Amino acid sequence: MRILILGGDGYLGWPTALRFSRRGHEVHLVDNYLRRRLLAADGTDSLTPIAGDLGARVAAWEQVSGRRITFTEGDLLDWDVTRSVFASFRPDAVVHYGELPSAPYSMRGRQECVLTQHNNVVGTLNVLWAMEEIVPEAHLIKLGTMGEYGTPNISIEEGFIEIAHEGRRDLLPYPKQPGSLYHCSKVHDSTNIHFACRVWGLRATDLNQGVVYGISTDECDLDERLVTRFDYDETFGTALNRFCVQAVIGHPLTVYGRGGQTRGFLNIRDTLRCVELAAENPPEPGEYRVFNQFTESFSVVELAELVQRAGKEIGLEVRIEPIDNPRVEEEEHYYNAKHTRLLDLGLEPHLLSETLVEDMLERIRRYQDRVIEDAIMPRTRWRPRG
Amino acid sequence: MRILILGGDGYLGWPTALRFSRRGHEVHLVDNYLRRRLLAADGTDSLTPIAGDLGARVAAWEQVSGRRITFTEGDLLDWDVTRSVFASFRPDAVVHYGELPSAPYSMRGRQECVLTQHNNVVGTLNVLWAMEEIVPEAHLIKLGTMGEYGTPNISIEEGFIEIAHEGRRDLLPYPKQPGSLYHCSKVHDSTNIHFACRVWGLRATDLNQGVVYGISTDECDLDERLVTRFDYDETFGTALNRFCVQAVIGHPLTVYGRGGQTRGFLNIRDTLRCVELAAENPPEPGEYRVFNQFTESFSVVELAELVQRAGKEIGLEVRIEPIDNPRVEEEEHYYNAKHTRLLDLGLEPHLLSETLVEDMLERIRRYQDRVIEDAIMPRTRWRPRG
Repeated sequence: MRILILGGDGYLGWPTALRFSRRGHEVHLVDNYLRRRLLAADGTDSLTPIAGDLGARVAAWEQVSGRRITFTEGDLLDWDVTRSVFASFRPDAVVHYGELPSAPYSMRGRQECVLTQHNNVVGTLNVLWAMEEIVPEAHLIKLGTMGEYGTPNISIEEGFIEIAHEGRRDLLPYPKQPGSLYHCSKVHDSTNIHFACRVWGLRATDLNQGVVYGISTDECDLDERLVTRFDYDETFGTALNRFCVQAVIGHPLTVYGRGGQTRGFLNIRDTLRCVELAAENPPEPGEYRVFNQFTESFSVVELAELVQRAGKEIGLEVRIEPIDNPRVEEEEHYYNAKHTRLLDLGLEPHLLSETLVEDMLERIRRYQDRVIEDAIMPRTRWRPRG
Repeated sequence: MRILILGGDGYLGWPTALRFSRRGHEVHLVDNYLRRRLLAADGTDSLTPIAGDLGARVAAWEQVSGRRITFTEGDLLDWDVTRSVFASFRPDAVVHYGELPSAPYSMRGRQECVLTQHNNVVGTLNVLWAMEEIVPEAHLIKLGTMGEYGTPNISIEEGFIEIAHEGRRDLLPYPKQPGSLYHCSKVHDSTNIHFACRVWGLRATDLNQGVVYGISTDECDLDERLVTRFDYDETFGTALNRFCVQAVIGHPLTVYGRGGQTRGFLNIRDTLRCVELAAENPPEPGEYRVFNQFTESFSVVELAELVQRAGKEIGLEVRIEPIDNPRVEEEEHYYNAKHTRLLDLGLEPHLLSETLVEDMLERIRRYQDRVIEDAIMPRTRWRPRG
């Protein structure tokens, strides 16, 4: 297949590219290095040292694997870029990671919020118009987030829910209660993509992904130059990855509030497998399909305690220190999110375990001199007026 | 009250401003004349002759009423404009009509779609950030549309629906199935505004408005220079208004497809009253409230037949001519949309009648020399590939 990977320089985009390339697919990447620039502006960086720009990264991959990945350094907001990438590469599948993924960034202020929504919504609109115009048969595999649903008091279904109401029934889009202005942008995308499938007959898989953890994939582990980025800062870091970095450098694990917030999680290896399963099993033309892409649910406190135990095994003394929750979210709530559709397609999850966390801690240790401690504590508050 | 009216130069914004002003409220308008420019670019214009720019319009109002309305010619996308309007006027209520309202325009091509979503979503984000920063107690009265809901097979509730699922219940946002990329932009707005209420504690009324018809309000009728704009072209015209213009100039009424499409409608006088009722009865801080703002439901064929009968009464021979539906929509469907919340607040609807249509036809006759017939037939198709 011809696989176009938008956001191919990212934490997930890069290892996804290597996996598809290794399996013999033709892979083209697009990235504008926006995340690199935003981290640099904040005075921080990936924990892992990235081999260089996309040119250097794909050159290293070619040396290691003998396989070639092509790329475009450009911005999806620039229609000339998007159009010409689609026209020249003519993908069979488009894996769309090319968005700003940070909830705290979107809440930092007006400018950051507008940048996030504009970047994500207009970038995705350009992708949809390019597909409609150039490759209407292609399959859009779009990364959404479980955070689109929020924490309703009923079970979370995969994208749609059958509602019985006053003697009639319909299968309708699952109601969304996104938890940040970034999460809102993903809901907007879902609305637009669903529309493009219903009305234009495009086909799409919307992967409502949980929180991804891990640093190791088969391809990234082949050579040090192939390592993916790994963020632990307040803006782009996520719960488990950040806890592991905190454990290694002797920083207390910062549980936000009571820590009863429960979310779906998955191993980075499973992200790659899920995207591959979606690509291998495309929906029908006109079909908008939603998979909840995670393998296990944990509360934040459970994760912190797991990291504490794993740290102990390898001789780290790990403290847990609850801090004022900078977010506005339920800290104790019902949570039952379905996630059977990817299992039905053959996903065999890598479940979280103490051993796995120990391995993550060991890997992080190699780079611990690179940690910028200043970047860890949350400064952005969901309620600017307090 | 201090009432800020965004989109104060528009079909509804202008008469709303006059009504609030006449009742002694302090009124400030913002408009960037975007709709005027888009119509001019299409070689068409309002049926009614507008007195001039906002300066000329408010001068006429001051002569007629002795009351002063202030205004800003500027773009909500420009943060300096938005911020300074809020900082200097400090509104108690913000009536937000300041969006691109055209479904066909948003479907014309990529550029028009992106302009619509960018204009509407970022403009509204700027309004939300300005409220959060400057007037967090103010009441946002936002014009949404019944088209956000689409045509589900169950009754449409007002914004939220109680869902029972697997033995549990929750009151959740009503699922949306918007009918165009413009309607999608209104869904995005609703998601963002709901978030700002939940998380920032702002208060908002989201008015999911039906299709507005009519040309006459108490204040606009006081003087010819106070007339509001009236669009009948394929892009900015709406069903009943366009049918009336077609009837007057002897153009067949263009029913799209089978004409069983059913929608909610309301008289322009009721729009003004609904906005006033919302302003007089604000929600609590943190409350996001949705009213379905229409008074009656009709199918497109029913409207065409009504115009035909009314035309006959005043000596017009009116033909109905179904044309290929340029839109993608159900042409026969279940439709039962609730609309009791504004009635509960005291709305006394002006219902549609043959007499009312006759009056519209007579008024339109005064301007019939201004009709640009070329602008009427639909050219934009929802499916560009056919």
